[in-house]
Amino acid sequence: MKAEIIAVGSELLLGQIANTNAQFLSQQLAEIGIDVYYHTVVGDNPQRLTHAIEVAKQRSNLIIFTGGLGPTKDDLTKETIAKMLNKSLVLDEEAWQSICDYFSKTNRPMSPNNRKQALVLEGSHVLKNEHGMAPGMALVVDQVTYMLLPGPPKEMQPMFMKYGRPFLLQKRHVREKIVSRVLRFFHIGESQLETEIEDLIDAQTNPTIAPLASDGEVTLRLTAKHEREEEAKRLIDEVEENILARVRPYFYGYNDETLFSKLLATLKEKHKTLAVAESLTGGLFLKEMTALPTASSVIAGGVVCYTNEIKENVLHVPKEILQTEGAVSERCAQSLAENVRKLCRSDIGISFTGVAGPDDLEGKPVGTVWIGIATERGTKTFALTLSGDRQAIRMRTAKYGCYYLLQLLH
Amino acid sequence: MKAEIIAVGSELLLGQIANTNAQFLSQQLAEIGIDVYYHTVVGDNPQRLTHAIEVAKQRSNLIIFTGGLGPTKDDLTKETIAKMLNKSLVLDEEAWQSICDYFSKTNRPMSPNNRKQALVLEGSHVLKNEHGMAPGMALVVDQVTYMLLPGPPKEMQPMFMKYGRPFLLQKRHVREKIVSRVLRFFHIGESQLETEIEDLIDAQTNPTIAPLASDGEVTLRLTAKHEREEEAKRLIDEVEENILARVRPYFYGYNDETLFSKLLATLKEKHKTLAVAESLTGGLFLKEMTALPTASSVIAGGVVCYTNEIKENVLHVPKEILQTEGAVSERCAQSLAENVRKLCRSDIGISFTGVAGPDDLEGKPVGTVWIGIATERGTKTFALTLSGDRQAIRMRTAKYGCYYLLQLLH
Repeated sequence: MKAEIIAVGSELLLGQIANTNAQFLSQQLAEIGIDVYYHTVVGDNPQRLTHAIEVAKQRSNLIIFTGGLGPTKDDLTKETIAKMLNKSLVLDEEAWQSICDYFSKTNRPMSPNNRKQALVLEGSHVLKNEHGMAPGMALVVDQVTYMLLPGPPKEMQPMFMKYGRPFLLQKRHVREKIVSRVLRFFHIGESQLETEIEDLIDAQTNPTIAPLASDGEVTLRLTAKHEREEEAKRLIDEVEENILARVRPYFYGYNDETLFSKLLATLKEKHKTLAVAESLTGGLFLKEMTALPTASSVIAGGVVCYTNEIKENVLHVPKEILQTEGAVSERCAQSLAENVRKLCRSDIGISFTGVAGPDDLEGKPVGTVWIGIATERGTKTFALTLSGDRQAIRMRTAKYGCYYLLQLLH
Repeated sequence: MKAEIIAVGSELLLGQIANTNAQFLSQQLAEIGIDVYYHTVVGDNPQRLTHAIEVAKQRSNLIIFTGGLGPTKDDLTKETIAKMLNKSLVLDEEAWQSICDYFSKTNRPMSPNNRKQALVLEGSHVLKNEHGMAPGMALVVDQVTYMLLPGPPKEMQPMFMKYGRPFLLQKRHVREKIVSRVLRFFHIGESQLETEIEDLIDAQTNPTIAPLASDGEVTLRLTAKHEREEEAKRLIDEVEENILARVRPYFYGYNDETLFSKLLATLKEKHKTLAVAESLTGGLFLKEMTALPTASSVIAGGVVCYTNEIKENVLHVPKEILQTEGAVSERCAQSLAENVRKLCRSDIGISFTGVAGPDDLEGKPVGTVWIGIATERGTKTFALTLSGDRQAIRMRTAKYGCYYLLQLLH
């Protein structure tokens, strides 16, 4: 199958938003083995949309549209396709009913336009919208599959996953189940990871192994196909085991896990509470941890000690350390971790101090970082030399905090 | 001019990155009055790229390419265009010299491929790359303007702004200067703002007024054209004055300013230091403030008091308040603001407490928020009822903190 994704919407051509729908769909299609050859973006204009479809159906046999299914007169995706394919638009009773229900439940007045949203191409397979009003649809004409999805990602993504993707798998007569699993690594570069497992990547066809680097982390996506889902999973298990035998120290989690969510889960599992002293990171570590629901069961809180006064007055770092070795020092990191642990009466204290830039500090270069971790068994410190800009250094420091603490907890 | 943006790169079709280059260029082109009719994304494949160009030159007279100017054999944008337009590729001495300089300076070995990067289309106007090795280029053939830009945004954006944009302005024989200014508003919805100034928007042609809503804020972009830059600025000043006469209470800044950067600048100007007690926001407010360089001159730091124990033990909120009124209460917000101000010996203390969800807390619904601001003149509290998910509630709370504090400081 040769796929093309056509996004319809003038807001894209004005640069008000990026075409993240095409990115999402491309990822999903790659995962089920459908090659995407083109993305096209076109405005809310029937002539230019018609032209884009004419071009697409010459070169692609799967055309996925996003956007233009709304109630206004600017929304014209299905109307334009209906005209081109010589199909009429018919009312979908189920969609119409759910639109009526929505308006009666919220006590809002319905406008005549809303009926337009319940119209679908005759003979199409309707894709239910469980997060909005406009249904999607799919149909095959002259061996070209047309799939229409709504524009808002919150509606489009679940619709595609629940109804669009299965439709495509069936269309391709794929009886195989496709199972994929992402392995997440930290503290190892993409090229080093690839070198370590190069022979596995080269030899492997089922599952495939796809590396990707982003935000200072590396992931491997393992994708297996088999008629029986259990067997696909077993194939993945086998390769995962081979990979981890070589690079286990850098592995931290699966799929959507993050270093922060993994740390939260591990703290809960071990029944340990954590307090945090943030100088360099200025609240970033705690912000990431508390972004997760239920963080309060193990994250006590902490102190953002951005100035030396707060380090001294609130966290009682000895003046002597600040004067002789400075705030960016091993002893300061140690003192901060120990004292925030005591102050917050937590099982563990962690501290971050360093130079985020743009300028050097205390004669220490940008990227100098100290992390301290205090527990009942004593205090460990970790030195880092990081590169990148201010935000990158802060974020990587916070991630290293998770990584070192996870290692201590295991 | 009818513009089309063609992004070349298989990583886009695999969904590994979003096409943010098209977004950036679309914004810039809109600002100088060039209409963008299509975006196209195509992989590193000469046949399909050729097809995309054939389609584009039938319907557009400005085609801007991003990507495919690198040294590898996958990079084939200029080679493909050269073949199509029957042009040869010639060495650009200046680009070649700067590539040689780069390698000799960094002591890295040069590969034969690097010479390929210095090749440009014969007769083209070379666009200098001041942030990388591959030069861009622009040329006009059969009344179609072709502009080739590198893929990495860090190279593409400055090249376009410094060399690409002036080339296009000259090409269009635009002698007018185009000046634009963004006005930023908070605590007013897009539709309310539009209603307040509807007659101004409708009547205005120079400058134009373009509203845009995002992240709970609304902006108005004013764009004026005039042969004399001074006069364009004066036209904008005039409209700005008319707009602010109606909605000044919601206005907080210009262009790239944020509520956080505005607050930092205002604190510096007034020589006031700030300490922060974060319950609901869990470090988010301090993280945003300390993301800005030089924050340490006015941001002392603060306490992330995620649990009631920390509120009581570190920030000395009376047990009675926590037991009778709860952590999410006006008196708790007041006590937190006053005590963090004292603890950190700052001029101002600000506190955030509330319910971010997903579940209710202390019988109070998700979105209930209290903000406290303590100064030498006493303490003020602010109640909010916010909607949205956990992250949206936390971020909007932090922004309201900036907004209320800015109002008190003025």
